[in-house]
Amino acid sequence: MEEINNVEVVPCTESDYLKPFRVLYNQNGTKKSWDFMRTHDSVSVLIFNTTSHCFVLVKQFRPAVYMNEWERTKTQLPQSAETTEKSNPEASAPESQEAQSASEGESSSQWPPASAGVTYELCAGLVDKPDLSLEEIARQEVLEECGYDVPASKLKRITSYRSGVGVTGAKQTMFYAEVSDDNCVGAGGGEPREGELIEVVKVPLHEAMTFAYNERIQKTMGVIFSFIWFHNNMSPKYKISTNV
Amino acid sequence: MEEINNVEVVPCTESDYLKPFRVLYNQNGTKKSWDFMRTHDSVSVLIFNTTSHCFVLVKQFRPAVYMNEWERTKTQLPQSAETTEKSNPEASAPESQEAQSASEGESSSQWPPASAGVTYELCAGLVDKPDLSLEEIARQEVLEECGYDVPASKLKRITSYRSGVGVTGAKQTMFYAEVSDDNCVGAGGGEPREGELIEVVKVPLHEAMTFAYNERIQKTMGVIFSFIWFHNNMSPKYKISTNV
Repeated sequence: MEEINNVEVVPCTESDYLKPFRVLYNQNGTKKSWDFMRTHDSVSVLIFNTTSHCFVLVKQFRPAVYMNEWERTKTQLPQSAETTEKSNPEASAPESQEAQSASEGESSSQWPPASAGVTYELCAGLVDKPDLSLEEIARQEVLEECGYDVPASKLKRITSYRSGVGVTGAKQTMFYAEVSDDNCVGAGGGEPREGELIEVVKVPLHEAMTFAYNERIQKTMGVIFSFIWFHNNMSPKYKISTNV
Repeated sequence: MEEINNVEVVPCTESDYLKPFRVLYNQNGTKKSWDFMRTHDSVSVLIFNTTSHCFVLVKQFRPAVYMNEWERTKTQLPQSAETTEKSNPEASAPESQEAQSASEGESSSQWPPASAGVTYELCAGLVDKPDLSLEEIARQEVLEECGYDVPASKLKRITSYRSGVGVTGAKQTMFYAEVSDDNCVGAGGGEPREGELIEVVKVPLHEAMTFAYNERIQKTMGVIFSFIWFHNNMSPKYKISTNV
């Protein structure tokens, strides 16, 4: 699908996106501190196309997943990185040195294929527009990412939960949207201006449970959970295979 | 449960825990960059006690969740923070200034109660011991956090997925552990030396689905997903209420 090359890891002394904060507090009389990051809450949407009896997911290259896989490859390779290690006054942290030397000293053939960073996810987006309801934000994401125009009133709230507890503490609310081919008004694919390169993919209903539990297909827990939620709650309406 | 006070947010110019990196790459010929953080993969464990027919969860105060709730409270309050804003040369980012002025200028009565930061989660831990299998690491977490001693061979792998796709890209593997009161060898509660203050809580099987979908109870998606997984896969063995 994607062609990824010229990969390079550099130190990141200041990020516009990742800004750590520190909170100091007393817990039951003991002084503690915790480093966290502020981020927006989010919405995710399980989309089911009633014309084709398919779930509609988004598939994209995720640099953070790619880098995680790269680390895994490294730890499985013979430890040759030490021979390329060198002093770098700008990178004081051990991890920073390691990434730096790896990008400089290792050959590009050690980078995994692009597919290592490609994940299947629910249509989703950040709650960054204070004037809009969660349903309205979810509606916009369904339109922008997947090309279906459905009224916000037709979005069914499934539930909400903490999407991160250690670093961000953010809350995600999950919705269910039933669409038909008649609602399809565009190709989706996200906002190219925002750098989004999203592929819309369909998972047939009868393959959904096999897809959900196939660990070779990289996905979020939201995909697995929502497919099972559908199975449990919509099965009186739509038949679903349970060959798992 | 918890008493939280003397809360203060300070800028965090360098964190031992949150270290941003930047990856530069070409995607289909277009130069792109992404800021990410390296973290360990993790394991989580759904624990079911066959003596009491209860799920065993951990409950703890999560500073990042607390801060997320504090932000929510702020946006719902009248905007009084502007009057306390002042120049701070050390905090150049707008977000940093905002957090700084909030902690200095707002009264402690505006901090939410400690319960706003308390979440229910599966027993879980980081994969930070290269010599141990995922099952062994999961086994240790079950013992340390929840006090049950079960052999690693009795842990059943449920599935794996990406626990973060934007920032960390980390992978989580979920297990199922069946325990009995006979396996209970301690109180659990985590490692106080590592600053863990974990409360072990039991959710009776017949209340599990109501618990899972009760949005007033803060929890991770792992709790919801694993309860439903149990319902679908263990219900021939154990009866579970489906009053949702």
